[in-house]
Amino acid sequence: MSAIEYIESHQEEYLEELKEFLRIPSVSTKNEHKPDIEHAAWWIAAKLRGAGMEKVEVVPTRLHPLVYAESAQMSGRPTLLLYGHYDVQPPEPLDLWTSPPFEPTIRDGNLYARGSADDKGQLYLHVKALEALHKAAGQLPLNVKVIIEGEEEIGGGSLWEFLVENRLRLKADALVLSDTSMLARGVPSITYGLRGLNYYQVEVAGPSQDLHSGVFGGAVPNPITILAQAIAKLHDARSRVSVPGFYEAVQKISPSEREAIKRLPWKEQEFRKTVGSPDLCGEEGFSTLERIWCRPTLELNGIWGGYTGDGAKTVIPSKAYAKISTRLVPNQDPEKIARLVEGRIRRSLPKSVSCEFKLLSTGRPWVGDCRHPILQKGSCALEKGFGKKAVFIREGGSIPLVEQIDRMFKIPCVLLGFGLPDENAHAPNEFISLDNYFGGMKSAALFYQDVAVR
Amino acid sequence: MSAIEYIESHQEEYLEELKEFLRIPSVSTKNEHKPDIEHAAWWIAAKLRGAGMEKVEVVPTRLHPLVYAESAQMSGRPTLLLYGHYDVQPPEPLDLWTSPPFEPTIRDGNLYARGSADDKGQLYLHVKALEALHKAAGQLPLNVKVIIEGEEEIGGGSLWEFLVENRLRLKADALVLSDTSMLARGVPSITYGLRGLNYYQVEVAGPSQDLHSGVFGGAVPNPITILAQAIAKLHDARSRVSVPGFYEAVQKISPSEREAIKRLPWKEQEFRKTVGSPDLCGEEGFSTLERIWCRPTLELNGIWGGYTGDGAKTVIPSKAYAKISTRLVPNQDPEKIARLVEGRIRRSLPKSVSCEFKLLSTGRPWVGDCRHPILQKGSCALEKGFGKKAVFIREGGSIPLVEQIDRMFKIPCVLLGFGLPDENAHAPNEFISLDNYFGGMKSAALFYQDVAVR
Repeated sequence: MSAIEYIESHQEEYLEELKEFLRIPSVSTKNEHKPDIEHAAWWIAAKLRGAGMEKVEVVPTRLHPLVYAESAQMSGRPTLLLYGHYDVQPPEPLDLWTSPPFEPTIRDGNLYARGSADDKGQLYLHVKALEALHKAAGQLPLNVKVIIEGEEEIGGGSLWEFLVENRLRLKADALVLSDTSMLARGVPSITYGLRGLNYYQVEVAGPSQDLHSGVFGGAVPNPITILAQAIAKLHDARSRVSVPGFYEAVQKISPSEREAIKRLPWKEQEFRKTVGSPDLCGEEGFSTLERIWCRPTLELNGIWGGYTGDGAKTVIPSKAYAKISTRLVPNQDPEKIARLVEGRIRRSLPKSVSCEFKLLSTGRPWVGDCRHPILQKGSCALEKGFGKKAVFIREGGSIPLVEQIDRMFKIPCVLLGFGLPDENAHAPNEFISLDNYFGGMKSAALFYQDVAVR
Repeated sequence: MSAIEYIESHQEEYLEELKEFLRIPSVSTKNEHKPDIEHAAWWIAAKLRGAGMEKVEVVPTRLHPLVYAESAQMSGRPTLLLYGHYDVQPPEPLDLWTSPPFEPTIRDGNLYARGSADDKGQLYLHVKALEALHKAAGQLPLNVKVIIEGEEEIGGGSLWEFLVENRLRLKADALVLSDTSMLARGVPSITYGLRGLNYYQVEVAGPSQDLHSGVFGGAVPNPITILAQAIAKLHDARSRVSVPGFYEAVQKISPSEREAIKRLPWKEQEFRKTVGSPDLCGEEGFSTLERIWCRPTLELNGIWGGYTGDGAKTVIPSKAYAKISTRLVPNQDPEKIARLVEGRIRRSLPKSVSCEFKLLSTGRPWVGDCRHPILQKGSCALEKGFGKKAVFIREGGSIPLVEQIDRMFKIPCVLLGFGLPDENAHAPNEFISLDNYFGGMKSAALFYQDVAVR
């Protein structure tokens, strides 16, 4: 029995197991989910043992545990480092979910649950591909090392510490991971570029306590108004980020890449439908894909201050807050960008308020070489697994590990994406297509087999 | 025994009763407090019966009940209409209260609780002044009609409907109420001017659902950014409201009033201390008191959108919201101002978002004549009750009823204020000074006695 046949005869079981994984609300950003985080780590560790890993460890860190596993290492065989994360984004707002976020539900060939696409579903299809290879042949065709972290969604530092401490032990010929999306349904895709991510929180403080807006209004600083004014100064009228120096180091898009992007089977109409806003907008002079893949941005991710309940409360709040992120591209330096953004905001504020600016997390951009042989093997495996032509794409999202591994080990990184552009990652009604879950599983098995043959 | 002696011998009892009133969390803006609202209405109705009112009714309305009472009407005696409200502002944020908002607590001669100053304490001192007059003389020296509403803090419409329906029955020679503050501790004050209030809610909608800010950021409208940009356009660099036409009808401050305001025993240093912000700010060319009393303003009262929890969530939200209010002065027309503000905001928005603009409530400004004999009687009563010189002031807050009564009945309105500028109305740690509670009670009794003598 081949690995592919093994997968085909175990589909029902492999789907039920994923559902079990998705039922664990392993939300890394919230303290109350600490027991769920630990449960998820131990759950996936047990499954790695079942997939033929010889050594499996749940590694304590300063925050959430990390799972590390190794197959029996055979000399002369290539070694792949597999990465995934078992933590998920918060599910809020809950009322917008059609079925509850932690009760996996199938509708129209899609499996809906928080983490189904990002990243439990995409991680688990690799674990099952390895299990199928192991069960079908009695052993794996190559050496595998697996790192599964629990701090991806919060940009935590434990993974980096683990990489540094285990530098020698982690030696591999390539990194493989699935935490990205296909360009479109039915278009298997390898991602060769990711944006970096800086995440900030800003607090603007005016009056020392909330004030009655009638009794004080007109004569005191209003932190909401002042924060809004500072935010308004972060973009110009042409949707460019108006932080001086922000674009200074940005790598230009080469004419050939521009041409390749233009030729992709991508439909703006589909994108518009997914977004659903009355119109799109973005930096002038760039296409939508260029704006998302190759250009840096600054986005507001949250804002709050004053009264936010039903009806009216006539208050001038003491403080107002914003969460802001910048997505970065080569060759922007995250630390420098953080200083520039902070400076721009501080200079916008009048002396009637004080400001606290925090850099919550930081991560560099990454762009790989899609002509590398192992990326070409990845492309072939996708075409065989799905029976469809594969494409090379970039992505607007961030996976800090990829750039860290590239920088530390100088190895190629193969990003096989089985999500979809409308998968609602980080939003209500996240899903993974069952075709992609099983197609991805077969592609992964084929990829491991192909890489095993030097 | 005089009414004053009666009050002095019942201080302990009158304080305990107020505490009982303050323990009822009659928050009018929240549906879950409906039973508390009704409890408060029935509680104060019972106290009015005990204060010698002949007829007492709890009047059902479309929202929260209204309490109406009348003393036995004696012909040939003047009639005063007393107004107050038993509803209170929401207590949030709860963690900033030193003692819980609905557990009245005395510290340093002040009684801390939500509603202590606004308006339960100030209302209840009138009820006790009437009781003292009634108990001391066996009857009231004049005719009294009392309206106590439960929708003041939400600008509800039930009071207005009651006034229109009971126009003839409510006939009186003057309105008296206490829902304002003294200029400063130890400076008894009559308020002869109030600002009007329009309260708005704005919803800016972009994407049809929350989106991943990596996968979509840079190419889609961000409702938070766009809302902030629209808010930033509502004021110019000199802190003037930059809504075209906003100042058009505004009555100028007369030189004599300007002079009178300048002479008041008011210390900017005290105001700065109360506010506690690094600096003050406001419309150029006007003093702090002029900004608050005589100039219209636009304030942000709330803003929210996206992720507002701990840590990071990389989301572009589907919607962002703001609560905005404008305080109005003579001769601004609230309906016209609402149209101007809505127009300004809509014109600021790009076509990539849609907008819902709601006018939640509206109320006109009011300025009375401080030379009227009954206001002079009020001033004398305050000087006797407190043993200190009284002043005439305006206020930045809004009491829609005053303008409504003025317009409907063409009678003078006497606003005896026993709050304090740092009382934290609408904010955590609201309090009433016990000196003001009892001094106000005595002043009110003296005022009723003096008005009784034509």
